[in-house]
Amino acid sequence: MSSDPKNSSDQKPAAQTVRARLPRGFADRGPSEILATNRMIEAIRASYEIYGFEAVETPFVEYTEALGKFLPDLDRPNEGVFSLQDDDEQWVSLRYDLTAPLARYVAENFDKLAKPYRSYRVGWVFRNEKPGPGRFRQFMQFDADTVGSASVTADAEICMMAADTLEKLGVKRGDYVIKVNNRKVLDGVLESAGLEGEGRGAQKLIVLRAIDKLDRLGADGVRMLLGTGRKDESGDFTKGADLSTAAIERILAFTAARAGDNAATLKNLASAVGDSARGREGVAELEQIATLCAAGGYEGRVVIDPAVVRGLEYYTGPVYEAELTFEVKDEHGRPMRFGSVGGGGRYDGLVARFRAEPVPATGFSIGVSRLFSALRAINSPLTRADDARGPVVVLAMDKDQPAAYLAMVGKLRAAGIRAEMYLGAAGMNAQLKYADRRKSICAVIQGSNERDKGEVAIRDLVLGAELAASTKDRADYLELRQKAQFTVSEDAMVDAVREVLARHGT
Amino acid sequence: MSSDPKNSSDQKPAAQTVRARLPRGFADRGPSEILATNRMIEAIRASYEIYGFEAVETPFVEYTEALGKFLPDLDRPNEGVFSLQDDDEQWVSLRYDLTAPLARYVAENFDKLAKPYRSYRVGWVFRNEKPGPGRFRQFMQFDADTVGSASVTADAEICMMAADTLEKLGVKRGDYVIKVNNRKVLDGVLESAGLEGEGRGAQKLIVLRAIDKLDRLGADGVRMLLGTGRKDESGDFTKGADLSTAAIERILAFTAARAGDNAATLKNLASAVGDSARGREGVAELEQIATLCAAGGYEGRVVIDPAVVRGLEYYTGPVYEAELTFEVKDEHGRPMRFGSVGGGGRYDGLVARFRAEPVPATGFSIGVSRLFSALRAINSPLTRADDARGPVVVLAMDKDQPAAYLAMVGKLRAAGIRAEMYLGAAGMNAQLKYADRRKSICAVIQGSNERDKGEVAIRDLVLGAELAASTKDRADYLELRQKAQFTVSEDAMVDAVREVLARHGT
Repeated sequence: MSSDPKNSSDQKPAAQTVRARLPRGFADRGPSEILATNRMIEAIRASYEIYGFEAVETPFVEYTEALGKFLPDLDRPNEGVFSLQDDDEQWVSLRYDLTAPLARYVAENFDKLAKPYRSYRVGWVFRNEKPGPGRFRQFMQFDADTVGSASVTADAEICMMAADTLEKLGVKRGDYVIKVNNRKVLDGVLESAGLEGEGRGAQKLIVLRAIDKLDRLGADGVRMLLGTGRKDESGDFTKGADLSTAAIERILAFTAARAGDNAATLKNLASAVGDSARGREGVAELEQIATLCAAGGYEGRVVIDPAVVRGLEYYTGPVYEAELTFEVKDEHGRPMRFGSVGGGGRYDGLVARFRAEPVPATGFSIGVSRLFSALRAINSPLTRADDARGPVVVLAMDKDQPAAYLAMVGKLRAAGIRAEMYLGAAGMNAQLKYADRRKSICAVIQGSNERDKGEVAIRDLVLGAELAASTKDRADYLELRQKAQFTVSEDAMVDAVREVLARHGT
Repeated sequence: MSSDPKNSSDQKPAAQTVRARLPRGFADRGPSEILATNRMIEAIRASYEIYGFEAVETPFVEYTEALGKFLPDLDRPNEGVFSLQDDDEQWVSLRYDLTAPLARYVAENFDKLAKPYRSYRVGWVFRNEKPGPGRFRQFMQFDADTVGSASVTADAEICMMAADTLEKLGVKRGDYVIKVNNRKVLDGVLESAGLEGEGRGAQKLIVLRAIDKLDRLGADGVRMLLGTGRKDESGDFTKGADLSTAAIERILAFTAARAGDNAATLKNLASAVGDSARGREGVAELEQIATLCAAGGYEGRVVIDPAVVRGLEYYTGPVYEAELTFEVKDEHGRPMRFGSVGGGGRYDGLVARFRAEPVPATGFSIGVSRLFSALRAINSPLTRADDARGPVVVLAMDKDQPAAYLAMVGKLRAAGIRAEMYLGAAGMNAQLKYADRRKSICAVIQGSNERDKGEVAIRDLVLGAELAASTKDRADYLELRQKAQFTVSEDAMVDAVREVLARHGT
């Protein structure tokens, strides 16, 4: 096929090898992470289903124009996504979130969907950004959305569901908060600062992305971004919104308007929006959300916080963010908080891009990978991987007896026990070491001696390791040694293996 | 941000709308397909785990050079995959199968893996090919591989596991066959036909891809592809392998060498490879596989079939294919077979591309989407979606009572019942229609009359639909009508809903 030695299909080692490496910003996942993530996904799925949401999935690839220019954290359209040209010259992209594809799906299937359309989906999304520590270019999101409801009850419900879901995942009450704000309130503040009207779109986007960085940069950093701009540690300069000092201080005062309880915060917001009709509408919506959440017993868990704006352009009303508030130690022993593990909001304009009529919608997205790290930190049972034990290993003592060893694993498997025959070429000690590396509990051994007598030796690898680490002086040494390896008739093999597995709780 | 009206975040319908459509060759998935596929995946996972394989997952993107030029069904390197240039100018691609990324993973983590390394993975793969009916550019595979074992026992085990897995998925014994062949036998046949040696790689690839089309094109079509070439119905011409008539007939005779049982087939193969040492090695390996499978009780289920070669270049020894043999009717009522739903083989050279030392490996891949269609056709319980019932719907009768309705769904959810409040703006009839479209079994209704008395009405939507379709003459009409909608006190709501759900087996 080719004279390139890399591509010959013969078995000779290639003269010139390719370096085995992952592209930057991508990661492999091992068995315990997969097991724990799947458990987490099932818990979220159960939580969303009990709220009446149903599953739907879209593919990984969409037409670039269908994704729109609603790009995350970026001021340059069409950067931040992985795009390529299809063979008919049309640009397609890997999805960068699950919301834009949902909008396309709803628009394409509008008439056949029962509305309000309540659906959830879990999947990988892709960002073509500079990777960094803990910052991946492929990560998993789990979304739920109600499309076709303009009612603020839908927003309140999503906030309460977010709280319920975190608790079902093992986050204790008091260890999280669902923060809520409203883009209309921000609009009202901008308006009363004289910053609304035609042609202000770009400036407004800079403002909300600046506020979104409040957590990370503090008020002083945001002040610079609202003014002439800010140079970061690396020397990169970000152009600011060029607002007047008065406007800047008015906006910063608004973001700090959270008070002791929702009622007091709402009072602050009412005065911040002044006479703006849109601002007042936003405050009224937040009031309704607060009332519904209080009635449902979520007061103190769903909290109005004007500092939450979300960095995406497409939100049009309430925005929410799920924040973990407990402290853990980072790898250097310093206290840290995980902060936001999910968020969302109302995006009444997104489906309308396809349909020329408004389709109100609201949704919430959990950052699965991020939440996973947080759940590990609090040792949530969902993320514990101590059950990632290897299979029972039947040693291959005699190379000419594969059928006999396969028959043994066959019996074990038929009894529902995970089992395998050692398939490598190494000797007995290396085979036992292999079983240890697989974290197997038990090995089954039959050499010619045992075979002649119709017997097998059962080895308890956990006990064996314990004994190897202890001294022979202990009183029960002989007794333990007998338990750690014993011989039974072939017929009794399955029961004996079961007994050893039961010793170690599996 | 932009003067483009499509991108303004206000709620006015866009003047110019984007067409909502999926890129060609991609598909959305609804709730019943997702549910059934997940069940299927869990069954395959359980089957692979009981064999001692552990989970591992690689990302969707790899360096193009890491995927190699082992492309599926294509004679042009680097076509057939979705590729794009990263910001550091390096080419990356979406994975086109799960084997090439596994080879990269094993090479990159070689020292920390216990070997033989037995792992499984499920995931989406991508082919940048012309889509057609039932031919998608994104589809799901479920693979299991043993890396680091040169033993033919590993190959035999994979064949037996494939058989077990199909049965666990509901395919009856006799309705499938695992066909096995060996690339070394084919090499032996080519050698004894004078077609081996340096520089024959391209020709050999054409030969094996021609044989791989035997099922579809028949012996005459393959004869053309082994000769000067073949023009298909569309007029496209495929260049052939340019073999002599004698060589062509020898190869075709080899592919037809399957006899009544494995022993007879092996005899035919032994004569087909003549004096070729490599060919004899291949026959001996097939003999071992047949012996081990017979000892395990798989005779008749694992069958040596020289017509199986697999279209991928990287196989070096045994190759296998899982084939469904039962007949179903296609959409036009014509009998059809699903044929191959999975396959694999030994690929001792694939990891070596990265390591300059041979790393023997063998694996099997199930085409999940294809197998899913087949399981649907035989009505496997795994793919039945009759449990895709919607949630209980609490009607929103009075717009000023959302807290009361949310409290009701809260009670139902706390009792483990999927429930939601209707969140749209429509009237009562449309709300009931919504519940019907969601396939809900039960609706809960509280207008001001019921509220004043502390009651709720419970409506059995299944029974209601039945009554609507029947006549009022039936003797039990009144009794049924009473069952179809009845009133209980608010306190009894959860029990009453449970009773209605139980009527319909949920």
